[in-house]
Amino acid sequence: MTASPTQLNQSQHPNLPPADSRARISAFMKGVQDSICQGLEELDGVGTFREDSWDREEGGGGRSRVIRDGDVFEQGGVNFSEVWGKTLPPSILQNRPDAAGHEFYATGTSMVLHPRNPYIPTVHLNYRYFEAGPVWWFGGGADLTPYYPFHEDAHHFHTTYKAACDRHNPHYYNIFKAWCDEYFYLKHRNEARGIGGIFFDYQDDRGELYRGPNPDQAAADYSRQLGDVPSRTWEEVFAFVKDCSEAFLPAYVPIAQKRRGTEYSDRERQFQLYRRGRYVEFNLVYDRGTIFGLQTNGRTESILMSLPPLVRWEYCYQPEPNSREAELYDTFLKPQDWANWSA
Amino acid sequence: MTASPTQLNQSQHPNLPPADSRARISAFMKGVQDSICQGLEELDGVGTFREDSWDREEGGGGRSRVIRDGDVFEQGGVNFSEVWGKTLPPSILQNRPDAAGHEFYATGTSMVLHPRNPYIPTVHLNYRYFEAGPVWWFGGGADLTPYYPFHEDAHHFHTTYKAACDRHNPHYYNIFKAWCDEYFYLKHRNEARGIGGIFFDYQDDRGELYRGPNPDQAAADYSRQLGDVPSRTWEEVFAFVKDCSEAFLPAYVPIAQKRRGTEYSDRERQFQLYRRGRYVEFNLVYDRGTIFGLQTNGRTESILMSLPPLVRWEYCYQPEPNSREAELYDTFLKPQDWANWSA
Repeated sequence: MTASPTQLNQSQHPNLPPADSRARISAFMKGVQDSICQGLEELDGVGTFREDSWDREEGGGGRSRVIRDGDVFEQGGVNFSEVWGKTLPPSILQNRPDAAGHEFYATGTSMVLHPRNPYIPTVHLNYRYFEAGPVWWFGGGADLTPYYPFHEDAHHFHTTYKAACDRHNPHYYNIFKAWCDEYFYLKHRNEARGIGGIFFDYQDDRGELYRGPNPDQAAADYSRQLGDVPSRTWEEVFAFVKDCSEAFLPAYVPIAQKRRGTEYSDRERQFQLYRRGRYVEFNLVYDRGTIFGLQTNGRTESILMSLPPLVRWEYCYQPEPNSREAELYDTFLKPQDWANWSA
Repeated sequence: MTASPTQLNQSQHPNLPPADSRARISAFMKGVQDSICQGLEELDGVGTFREDSWDREEGGGGRSRVIRDGDVFEQGGVNFSEVWGKTLPPSILQNRPDAAGHEFYATGTSMVLHPRNPYIPTVHLNYRYFEAGPVWWFGGGADLTPYYPFHEDAHHFHTTYKAACDRHNPHYYNIFKAWCDEYFYLKHRNEARGIGGIFFDYQDDRGELYRGPNPDQAAADYSRQLGDVPSRTWEEVFAFVKDCSEAFLPAYVPIAQKRRGTEYSDRERQFQLYRRGRYVEFNLVYDRGTIFGLQTNGRTESILMSLPPLVRWEYCYQPEPNSREAELYDTFLKPQDWANWSA
């Protein structure tokens, strides 16, 4: 194992992270994992998380926690990892060329929960932090993937995250919500993965909020209209990420509580298994975190912990017109202004 | 739909395909699909193939055939497609830069069969043909993925393909067998997908047989030791591909026949569903045909027809020591000289 890269001196670079940045973020990311796991165990009531700690040969390690065969969760994983090494993989350097030639440090917490009841949505959360020489950034977000969706659940999830965003910048939600719709999109299916949430990446002291690849998408549009925001300190961006991470349990737990008792038949179960296939397709074909993990020789079992316990593919499946399944496709798998929906 | 690209004049380029190359290959690929589907229906006895014909907006189309809920096959697909367009995708041009700037024509037949009985292996076959300006090549192969493997089945599959190879060049089998082991390998699992078979790509009039990306692998080694083979005509390479395609039914049907009556319990079924996850991981993360299809705006349902009907993931699964499941990992998911195995 190599030593973690040396930290630059903040007095020479005013916008650099504080000297104890890595210790603080690492403690924060572990704390997110702890509080989420505790909240989810309370919600589930039966299942508990099993933890595996692991080391990465090239530097770093993590702790993976899995819950299985619970009352609410058929399977779920909450993963903390902290890795470092000589150079970031090309997929990241093409977005941050100024990080090239520097040793990197990366840490993050990620989570995917697959409930058993098809009326409870699958949910994903990820927060991550990178340093490479003078370069640092935060990324992350959370998004919801219902099978049998409810307008009020989509509204609740989005307003909870909007409130967290609004405490920091009145434009964050608009841009990060649109960025989420853009990121969690299956091009080969012409479908959103779910009803979205928020997503952001490469957030640092630079003024442009949207830092995604598509100048023709809504998030880029909002960001251009807004122009540069005032230079943000490391502490300010971190405070925003903290607030987002704390929004998760209030955003998700009430939805799971409300739907856990809903009765369902084999029809709903089969549709859930089928739709889980889209989660697999997204994570293996598009997901940045999965690709980063596989490219940096990460722990495969932890990276692929996001895959569902049971999945079905069916050639040329089409929902019956006017069915609940069709409603998912027609209304919920398209970007909608969920925060402003009213019953 | 745009017109298929204009063919160059063979009299000016002696090693070019004949003037009717596309019509001949297209008819051949359809014939492969027909004879395989017929052979598989006879084998299954219950299931029959359902066909969908489709057009591709940018040029071309195909016919997809799916068998479901048969006596042998839980699900299987045999796909023919023929597409053309302005330019090949970057993933191919980086291997054939001389094809850049030319309109392309591509046709192929591909097949994946997922049997219900865990004692019958999953099997994959693909043959493909490309033209782009003065450039042409054939690719393809077939490989076997057992769950509960038998030495004699692995031997039978390999010797059948070796015989087809040997009729054309005594070195083909060695190189294309090793190339198959290299290609169908899951790096993130450190596992072979199955017991292999043969695989080749970019086969044309050039002398070097191995044209894969890894100079440090066995296939590259064999190819270097052999040196350049004499320049092959288009007809010679095509004749080899024809013989390979005809080897499929004799290679696979006897194995399926021998194993279809084997009794199994939920333990074997659960292991089969788990191992099918590796098929999904390979096809979505690594497979050249899948990525080509998704990048060229192919018909998604036909491309992802290869995914299994039901799949399971399990965090940190390990086979019991000395079990049949452990034997798969320890013996069969490592490259072996199956053609020379003896009971």
